[in-house]
Amino acid sequence: MTNETHDAALRSWVESANAAGCDFPVQNLPLAVFRRHGSGEPWRGGVAIGDQVLDLAAARGTGVFEGAASDAATLAGNPTLNGLMALGPRHWSALRLALSRLLRAGAPQAGALARCLVPQAEAEYTVPAQIGDYTDFYTSVHHATNIGRLFRPDNPLMPNFKWVPIGYHGRVSSIGVSGQRFHRPHGQVLSPGAAAPAFAACARLDYELELGIWVGPGNASGRPIPIAEAGQHVFGLCLLNDWSARDIQAWEYQPLGPFLSKNFATTVSPWIVTMEALEPYRLAWTRPAGDPQPLAYLDSAEDRAHGAIDVQLEAWLESEAMRAAAAGPCRLSHTSFRHAYWSIAQMVAHHAVGGCNLNPGDLLGSGTQSGPTAAEGGALIELTAGGRQPAALANGETRRFLEDGDTVILRGWCEKPGYVRIGFGECRGTVLPALD
Amino acid sequence: MTNETHDAALRSWVESANAAGCDFPVQNLPLAVFRRHGSGEPWRGGVAIGDQVLDLAAARGTGVFEGAASDAATLAGNPTLNGLMALGPRHWSALRLALSRLLRAGAPQAGALARCLVPQAEAEYTVPAQIGDYTDFYTSVHHATNIGRLFRPDNPLMPNFKWVPIGYHGRVSSIGVSGQRFHRPHGQVLSPGAAAPAFAACARLDYELELGIWVGPGNASGRPIPIAEAGQHVFGLCLLNDWSARDIQAWEYQPLGPFLSKNFATTVSPWIVTMEALEPYRLAWTRPAGDPQPLAYLDSAEDRAHGAIDVQLEAWLESEAMRAAAAGPCRLSHTSFRHAYWSIAQMVAHHAVGGCNLNPGDLLGSGTQSGPTAAEGGALIELTAGGRQPAALANGETRRFLEDGDTVILRGWCEKPGYVRIGFGECRGTVLPALD
Repeated sequence: MTNETHDAALRSWVESANAAGCDFPVQNLPLAVFRRHGSGEPWRGGVAIGDQVLDLAAARGTGVFEGAASDAATLAGNPTLNGLMALGPRHWSALRLALSRLLRAGAPQAGALARCLVPQAEAEYTVPAQIGDYTDFYTSVHHATNIGRLFRPDNPLMPNFKWVPIGYHGRVSSIGVSGQRFHRPHGQVLSPGAAAPAFAACARLDYELELGIWVGPGNASGRPIPIAEAGQHVFGLCLLNDWSARDIQAWEYQPLGPFLSKNFATTVSPWIVTMEALEPYRLAWTRPAGDPQPLAYLDSAEDRAHGAIDVQLEAWLESEAMRAAAAGPCRLSHTSFRHAYWSIAQMVAHHAVGGCNLNPGDLLGSGTQSGPTAAEGGALIELTAGGRQPAALANGETRRFLEDGDTVILRGWCEKPGYVRIGFGECRGTVLPALD
Repeated sequence: MTNETHDAALRSWVESANAAGCDFPVQNLPLAVFRRHGSGEPWRGGVAIGDQVLDLAAARGTGVFEGAASDAATLAGNPTLNGLMALGPRHWSALRLALSRLLRAGAPQAGALARCLVPQAEAEYTVPAQIGDYTDFYTSVHHATNIGRLFRPDNPLMPNFKWVPIGYHGRVSSIGVSGQRFHRPHGQVLSPGAAAPAFAACARLDYELELGIWVGPGNASGRPIPIAEAGQHVFGLCLLNDWSARDIQAWEYQPLGPFLSKNFATTVSPWIVTMEALEPYRLAWTRPAGDPQPLAYLDSAEDRAHGAIDVQLEAWLESEAMRAAAAGPCRLSHTSFRHAYWSIAQMVAHHAVGGCNLNPGDLLGSGTQSGPTAAEGGALIELTAGGRQPAALANGETRRFLEDGDTVILRGWCEKPGYVRIGFGECRGTVLPALD
């Protein structure tokens, strides 16, 4: 499935795209919705190339697109990408191939398209689709075990985990794009040993390092999506921070799951890396010896062979003290999405198997991604053993949980010998003090 | 807060509205979005009066509305009621007063407005707002105890129940209006004594008798809604059936709550009864001796005095055999929303207290409403003790859970000496056989 768009020899006429370590070489071509910062311009789709955004509404106006790519580019120039997402893989692929050819060094259209570039430094972004529904999954067995041990020491991993791709519905209204700032939430907290809960500002505020999965074409109500077709329903991936108030969560979550502990804010990165761009980084998944094999509706030879994706993931923290010292952020952990127990196709097939209808622009969270080692925890609650062992930061500060002013930065990328590294950009969010 | 619109002496020039037992007298005036059945007409808002719908888009065109009522009627004529919901109580009240005066016997505008009536028998309805988020609460202590006993015999009522208005996020895409038909869902089920789950059609399909609460003006992200102001954020109520696959639910729900067991379908009634229409039926709520008092953010003198609402609720079942015999449906249970442990104001204040932003057109479910006696169970799982004691139907059939072809009909109304009974109409949904 890899093709000429993945060719490591390709270079772009946008010189910044050819720099080593750049997130957005011509092999990537992720999409976002943007406008010039602070302008009253309409939101429209754009493609990242180096340190620039190619304005797709403007590019379409130059007449450089033809056929299916033209149809796709027309919808990609809209204020939301829902229309593009609804088109499906044939159109997505045509647009990608056209963009790859137009942005390559030597493309005759370079002159016309250079006038459609906006520097990323001058751009602002918004959530790239109107999200009808947001579902958060729970696909990391390492995370489920780590956090389960804290909430239920006697029963860390529920017996359903290795059978069911566990998911639950999340809050759409509070999903924001990278740069989101939110006040530390208040809620009910039952302190250890207390006879009654108290109303207080969250004292155990955490991040969760996740990927977001943007749904493409939907399914009709009552019509499941076979796992063999699931890939055709997935547009691409972003970074996602599922901010979590652990003290509120511990008190509220039984029996119906997290609610106020999660619904105050969720942050996504603006750039959607398409599934085609991620194709070279796909891997086989296997089940550890002794684990059950997936039920038939969650199993396909294709998914076993290629269902995992080696997206490297990092969480960084920038405190107020670091900003004051211009010290730069400090890395908290590093893992890979390849450790997920359930694949994206399994999530999609499971979601729809009871008849639930998915729609273009729906967002799925992967659940916190933690790796097999202690340093690979995808949340502070894991890295600090529930707050008992403070994490040391590079500047001498420590953290049990997030403090006011902390900015959490998620990063992701793929790299592999023979291929040019592609990146996700950043997903940033900042904790403001609780309101009175 | 009751006013001339509640006056029991009022009669309408639409004669059917004056019939005893009519759901839609001139004292009610609920809103829906409708069009003539099978027509290509645009969806628009309408008001129920007797057996007719007053077409608000057409009525507005006659120039009968003035001031705030005109602003409200303009938005009420739209294909969704979100705009009307966003306006707030002053406009809602102005529209209600105007409609009450226009539809009263003797109104000089009767001739002009008679041409804006569409018989309900010729109307079809749609979900009346674009729902941004759907949240289902769990406000009945009787339901929580009944169902908790089945899922967790040793721990039926969680210790948080009497402190936290428990809620969780639900699925928007599969919400349909009365008349919804859906296929029995498939999913993973762990049979008693089985070593591993199986993939199967749900064998324990159930309804849940709830009210739906339509949110009016929202709150900014990070800005809670004080309980004293919560009422200004609530537009009105409908009936809601939270269809539930109990066998799927039992296996999947830990630790993150129900997912596939609920997201295949949720049915709402088309008519939204406004909070002002419900005003005469408000009651005080109290806490049983020994129960904790609500935390301050959930407590107000006004809510204690008037926070409960005596909405009578019924669930009926019409089987295929009943339809074949033209026998009519059979009542399963009857209770009242006045038994809810948490009030609507408490739900709203709790939802927003951590900073979650609500938006006009958001939908809240009340959770299954069950009363204090065994006959008042709001779901079959309660009425049949988890399927162990089949419920006897009037025609000799029995039910442990729902069978293919069963139509569940929810009804609701308010009545009180000195006031004219007002009703909610019906919320119907039908179970189709599982697909292969």
